[in-house]
Amino acid sequence: MMQLDDLDRSILRLLKKDARLTISEIAEKLNRPESTIHFRIKKLLEKGAIDHYTILLGEALQPKKVALVVLQAETPIIEDFLERYVNHIMRTLAMLSNVLFVAKSGKDTVMALIGGENEESLEAFIDENIKTLPTLKGVHVYFIDDIKKGEELIGFLVDV
Amino acid sequence: MMQLDDLDRSILRLLKKDARLTISEIAEKLNRPESTIHFRIKKLLEKGAIDHYTILLGEALQPKKVALVVLQAETPIIEDFLERYVNHIMRTLAMLSNVLFVAKSGKDTVMALIGGENEESLEAFIDENIKTLPTLKGVHVYFIDDIKKGEELIGFLVDV
Repeated sequence: MMQLDDLDRSILRLLKKDARLTISEIAEKLNRPESTIHFRIKKLLEKGAIDHYTILLGEALQPKKVALVVLQAETPIIEDFLERYVNHIMRTLAMLSNVLFVAKSGKDTVMALIGGENEESLEAFIDENIKTLPTLKGVHVYFIDDIKKGEELIGFLVDV
Repeated sequence: MMQLDDLDRSILRLLKKDARLTISEIAEKLNRPESTIHFRIKKLLEKGAIDHYTILLGEALQPKKVALVVLQAETPIIEDFLERYVNHIMRTLAMLSNVLFVAKSGKDTVMALIGGENEESLEAFIDENIKTLPTLKGVHVYFIDDIKKGEELIGFLVDV
């Protein structure tokens, strides 16, 4: 991983909270010359410490309830087909706009983060769109009831 | 959820990709007057469609391997203590800088997203720092091997 000093970290933390801060505002907050801040941000971008500037969508656009779904694909008789099964499950999930995140674990497990209005509508969605996938062995649904760290990820992942 | 029209969505999508775009750049891309774009962004901020402007940290600062850990707390003899057990687990996890996300599901389940250099170091970290928590009944580790949708969440969640 890239080495950062305290000034780099301070700049990154300020920009994470508000990426609209100007160079001169950051310079003032950190009590450093504008030229230093300008140079550091240039370097942070060049070295890939900052990927890009973005916006976090607010609560008005976020699903009210989120569930993590862990799916296990059936092991087919012809074992080479397992990868196809898993890829099909991932592609199908990724196409759905209220599916915020899709990832694979090991050879047969798929994880997805799914948003909805409430537990009932999420359950209905999972029953109709996920449990009906033909190559599934098991589905485990974890409704997320309270986020202690990283809560903002919902606003980051939501589609518009 | 808030109602957005096509112009709102187009603006939000452009800002998600690059929040440094100026009003006039957005106006040009969407072939609308600057005053319209200015007004719409003002409204999107006021109505909470945009929470805030932020940066996404790049690969240079991201953990190379991530695991989702699902923990189940032991049910204590005095059932009222379960909430304390779960809160203790969540607090402990949230304090660790390579723990990117911590959430609760139901009464006894905690989920955490943990970053590390590779599977071995992640396994060692989980053995030393998580499996040793005294009030745990079960720990399931899912190494994330391939992200199909929402990949950028790692750069969003990582600490500096």
